Amino acid sequence: MSNTAFTTQVTIEWGDCDEAGIVFYPNYFYWLDCSFQRLLRARGLSLREVRKRFGAVTPITQAHADFTAPARYDDVLDIAVSVALQGERRFRVDYDFTSNGKRIGSGHEVRAFALIGADGTIKGAPVDAEFLSILVPAN
Amino acid sequence: MSNTAFTTQVTIEWGDCDEAGIVFYPNYFYWLDCSFQRLLRARGLSLREVRKRFGAVTPITQAHADFTAPARYDDVLDIAVSVALQGERRFRVDYDFTSNGKRIGSGHEVRAFALIGADGTIKGAPVDAEFLSILVPAN
Amino acid sequence: MSNTAFTTQVTIEWGDCDEAGIVFYPNYFYWLDCSFQRLLRARGLSLREVRKRFGAVTPITQAHADFTAPARYDDVLDIAVSVALQGERRFRVDYDFTSNGKRIGSGHEVRAFALIGADGTIKGAPVDAEFLSILVPAN
Amino acid sequence: MSNTAFTTQVTIEWGDCDEAGIVFYPNYFYWLDCSFQRLLRARGLSLREVRKRFGAVTPITQAHADFTAPARYDDVLDIAVSVALQGERRFRVDYDFTSNGKRIGSGHEVRAFALIGADGTIKGAPVDAEFLSILVPAN
Repeated sequence: MSNTAFTTQVTIEWGDCDEAGIVFYPNYFYWLDCSFQRLLRARGLSLREVRKRFGAVTPITQAHADFTAPARYDDVLDIAVSVALQGERRFRVDYDFTSNGKRIGSGHEVRAFALIGADGTIKGAPVDAEFLSILVPAN
Repeated sequence: MSNTAFTTQVTIEWGDCDEAGIVFYPNYFYWLDCSFQRLLRARGLSLREVRKRFGAVTPITQAHADFTAPARYDDVLDIAVSVALQGERRFRVDYDFTSNGKRIGSGHEVRAFALIGADGTIKGAPVDAEFLSILVPAN
Repeated sequence: MSNTAFTTQVTIEWGDCDEAGIVFYPNYFYWLDCSFQRLLRARGLSLREVRKRFGAVTPITQAHADFTAPARYDDVLDIAVSVALQGERRFRVDYDFTSNGKRIGSGHEVRAFALIGADGTIKGAPVDAEFLSILVPAN
Repeated sequence: MSNTAFTTQVTIEWGDCDEAGIVFYPNYFYWLDCSFQRLLRARGLSLREVRKRFGAVTPITQAHADFTAPARYDDVLDIAVSVALQGERRFRVDYDFTSNGKRIGSGHEVRAFALIGADGTIKGAPVDAEFLSILVPAN
């Protein structure tokens, strides 16, 4: 990915694999979400901080993954994360998985930006420019 | 178990097993918790209802399991649940796992009874007698 | 979905939800996989049976989900499953999630059909016609 | 613990917590198992290596945890691991969880030592002395 904002690693644990000895695929989505949370954290944010500072939540509207090669117990996954605006009210987080330089797969999440009203209900809104600039550093 | 309050079933899914083709053991604890929630539900309760009706939560203080025989993908687990008071402020939930009549293992949870104060903090309290009687039907 | 091959249900457990009180989304993919396994089982198959009868495995190459409305603890998800050939060597499994008649989301998996060689390696092959006809009943 | 053999860390992810905002307890057992695997790895072993070098597997026979204080999203858990022989054919792995110096809980696993026969069946056996000495370094 050309605009990698963040990289992180995951070591595949015994319990992450299935009887075929390869990662049980829903775990990749757990790692997608973890990587997003770690990106927030690396930028001094967290979901709680986003709520406090921007009065917003970022509900997921789409998740996708393509699996290129299997990964196994003890393999270390390198995850490259990039973020881009998608339309006005959503942003897309792209994930690239490699292990030992070998392509394992890729995926993305689409997340909405939603403001929390006084009554607690949430309502879609344009992605806050400051929020986005924190996740997508200027070149 | 002599005082079975409730029985439920779980079918072991592909993703519940590890490379050895047997259940990855932390999943048993997920099923312990599920079985407790299902017992509550079968009695017309839920954690939210417990909160509303008794002003209480039931935080776990201990979890334990003994594994007798392995269980595999497609096996159906029969789970027998029984509940007993433990001391004044805690109750113990016992679980018995069989599959096709064969003993798979057993486990228990110890849960505290804690009242939610006006400020949101929780404080241990004697287990509510009505709450207990709902979980432990009189003979 | 017009060609529903199979329907199944999942009750959302306490442990399936996150701090926001809604399903932690990777769990939907666990239910996608479970639903596929249950479809196989309902047709008298299982991954082991597929291996024995067709000498094949069905590795996943893509997984996708769109989330329409949040689902919560105690909600029952109705999952409608349909299967269709995609190209010659792959098949696609579509999933539709509703709860109490309300649309929750949808998703799909793309799975390859791969034959297991004498040396244990697997190799993509045209989807076996009998296998497909078991999953996609004739009208 | 006096005989800590190994320490490791886990950062609590968003998806590890439940609606109450605290760790959903079965996840602790996932971390127990991960910590054991990491200990093996740190000693140059892995379950596959144990199988190859000692012709053995280490099936779990008991798992236990006591929960002292809740842990939350973003908390870092420090896990101290120690190993001791239990009887002749089993060993016990103890785990101590702290976060920021605060006691979160503790737990243990009991694992059997079982040799894999020529026909693939496994049979309990005395814990291999070399295997044990790798996990329990001499003082």
